[in-house]
Amino acid sequence: MTTVLTLTIRPAQPSDAPQILAFITELAEYEKARHEVIASVDDIQRTLFGDNATAHGLICLRGDQPVGFAVYFFNYSTWQGRNGLYLEDLYVSVDARGTGAGKLLLKHLAREACAKGCGRFEWSVLDWNEPAIQFYKSIGAQPQPEWVRYRMDGQALQAFAADA
Amino acid sequence: MTTVLTLTIRPAQPSDAPQILAFITELAEYEKARHEVIASVDDIQRTLFGDNATAHGLICLRGDQPVGFAVYFFNYSTWQGRNGLYLEDLYVSVDARGTGAGKLLLKHLAREACAKGCGRFEWSVLDWNEPAIQFYKSIGAQPQPEWVRYRMDGQALQAFAADA
Repeated sequence: MTTVLTLTIRPAQPSDAPQILAFITELAEYEKARHEVIASVDDIQRTLFGDNATAHGLICLRGDQPVGFAVYFFNYSTWQGRNGLYLEDLYVSVDARGTGAGKLLLKHLAREACAKGCGRFEWSVLDWNEPAIQFYKSIGAQPQPEWVRYRMDGQALQAFAADA
Repeated sequence: MTTVLTLTIRPAQPSDAPQILAFITELAEYEKARHEVIASVDDIQRTLFGDNATAHGLICLRGDQPVGFAVYFFNYSTWQGRNGLYLEDLYVSVDARGTGAGKLLLKHLAREACAKGCGRFEWSVLDWNEPAIQFYKSIGAQPQPEWVRYRMDGQALQAFAADA
């Protein structure tokens, strides 16, 4: 007898924070950046679910078991004069790979982008992550390699902000 | 007699929309993307100043004359469990280059990032824009070239969202 477990997507809620942090950490390990995860459960609760939260979470369930998540926010295109939807993080746990959970999360977000009148659905990928890149190309996404992100953080940000 | 015109920064307001669109268009010309500017004054007014606006504008004045602008929004880092500040567009009109207007806008944004508890201040630059790249490096920003942005838009986005 085979039990078929249905995949569903629902908005994340505050009680998901520990699970979200566990997923974030698993993804960072894959991205070789475990040491860069400094978020706490409390940080996640406050910044994704607090009054002024601008980022949003989704949970993918297989049956009633969380097997993946996404975090997104609305970015903006001045050329279009409208918002876009930016996917910050997408992760499916190892034991749920190949079930379609990742594609279901992406489809849910594409629909949300269309429903909100967004002109673009965007995300970033590490340049060595070939399986992800091939998947993204297969669903019609285009790389924007001419745009390089710059970042100011930590001491450099504090110093630049403080300098008269 | 020399008249010294003071540079000031203030939040953009709905009546700035025509000036903002003019700046957006000038910047797009420099970025060789004039044909990609499809925004109207009405779009700018609605999306930057409407009830659900998530992006924000700044105007730089020299005396009482607008000479530059910035559009930004809050992004999110799952690794940090906190927001960042993302600068979408920064532009200073040709006749105000070299006056410090661009750096003043960046400093204003760095302070806003610190005031809002953001962990990062980020933006993107075209890989051939050497003057901008040298300037960004000089103020302590670091390139993140290993991250490549992917985009789904237009027909590809509609098709992916509609597909069952």
